[in-house]
Amino acid sequence: MERITSRKNPLIAHFRKLAVSASYRRECGTFLCDGYKLAEEAVRWGVVRTALVAEDPIQPLFMAKRQIEVPPAVMEAVSPSRTPQGIVCECEIPDRPLPDPLPGRRYVVLDGVQDPGNVGTILRTADAFGADGVFLLDGCADPYSPKTVRSGMGVVFRLPVWQVSAEALASLLDRSGLPLYGAALDENARDIRDMDWNRFAAAIGSEGRGLSQEVLDLCRGTFRIPMRQRCESLNAAMAAGVVLWEAAREEDLACRD
Amino acid sequence: MERITSRKNPLIAHFRKLAVSASYRRECGTFLCDGYKLAEEAVRWGVVRTALVAEDPIQPLFMAKRQIEVPPAVMEAVSPSRTPQGIVCECEIPDRPLPDPLPGRRYVVLDGVQDPGNVGTILRTADAFGADGVFLLDGCADPYSPKTVRSGMGVVFRLPVWQVSAEALASLLDRSGLPLYGAALDENARDIRDMDWNRFAAAIGSEGRGLSQEVLDLCRGTFRIPMRQRCESLNAAMAAGVVLWEAAREEDLACRD
Repeated sequence: MERITSRKNPLIAHFRKLAVSASYRRECGTFLCDGYKLAEEAVRWGVVRTALVAEDPIQPLFMAKRQIEVPPAVMEAVSPSRTPQGIVCECEIPDRPLPDPLPGRRYVVLDGVQDPGNVGTILRTADAFGADGVFLLDGCADPYSPKTVRSGMGVVFRLPVWQVSAEALASLLDRSGLPLYGAALDENARDIRDMDWNRFAAAIGSEGRGLSQEVLDLCRGTFRIPMRQRCESLNAAMAAGVVLWEAAREEDLACRD
Repeated sequence: MERITSRKNPLIAHFRKLAVSASYRRECGTFLCDGYKLAEEAVRWGVVRTALVAEDPIQPLFMAKRQIEVPPAVMEAVSPSRTPQGIVCECEIPDRPLPDPLPGRRYVVLDGVQDPGNVGTILRTADAFGADGVFLLDGCADPYSPKTVRSGMGVVFRLPVWQVSAEALASLLDRSGLPLYGAALDENARDIRDMDWNRFAAAIGSEGRGLSQEVLDLCRGTFRIPMRQRCESLNAAMAAGVVLWEAAREEDLACRD
């Protein structure tokens, strides 16, 4: 097997840059998957370009196109995790052209959700509850950052995610006949139990700031999740999950795949 | 105002120990609240014992029993946050005797949920959706660790949280006439849409390991959240949130307070 022992090797530098730079990931068209579970999923999808593996792997090795052994110090330098499991893969970013019009009937739109853990959790939950895709507007965490990938647990391979501008999204939704509804906290917003969730795109903002005025102006209406009055708001991922469940619960979800 | 300039001051050492040690927090009966939002809530509840504040506070000061000014280096040493906001308070852990029998009808039981972010999010969501309290069994994150407190955003002041053994909980639930239901992933578990959520305690395990056999053995039945077949599971906080919403959605939540 190939072997790299220096942290200064160009391939190691390349991996480290993939871990920290969204623009570099876009330029290369690749991102990192850290750990065995993600690596196995990436291999199954046939998207692993290069795998760096520890000298004494905890789990049996599998076949990536290119597999390179590295000593612990190099693995620690290259793994985005604080406790490296012993494998880091460079994987191809899925090529998902934005369909026009949109063929599905259930989309999530995130606006300014910066926390990668929240974005990853929302992607997973959207996938679990039958969403057809997720749109990330300005100010959201990059879906291919190591933290988002980790909290998403492989959802990037399964569910389409598109980064678009609010304007482009609005006209696409319009052409697709999909109403955009925005999460809000005010009393005028409609209770999610009274909404028609048959076809929709649901916009969720960050917990602190909510949806931007630009996105609110594009919404056909706003919705709110009822809660105890002494509570101010829900975590953004929780809000997204509850709305998605409310939309999905009328169906026989277990058979939807 | 009192002023401390040395990181070696005993009070500073005391604060640092409160940040890292659950047993020290129990011994002292206090915990830390970091940042203005939490500090304001703690003052409102009258539980602030000592507040350390930055020399140039971002926000106007408020009255704590004892308020001490510290320079930036000391604030950085003492704040559990990577980007200190300029205030850290030592607060009294709420004294909440465990009622016997339990007067409410909606409880959450966490088993081995180690991630403090998840525990904090679950506490907040339980509060938002009308739960009467949360039980933490062995292996859960401490509800008064700085990370749990941060993600809980002040819920520790509002919602009762008890750390108990599974056995003690089982007999208490029995005396209170509350059935314990456990989250599971198997096909035999009942769909949450088919459950009677009028009175219950819902047990949630960690995503990776699920509920322990000990807790499963205490359950009257298990439930599952239906999802796309290609998805393995939900994040523990999301699972708790969806169950709580499913239980609460039949009621006029906005008026429940």
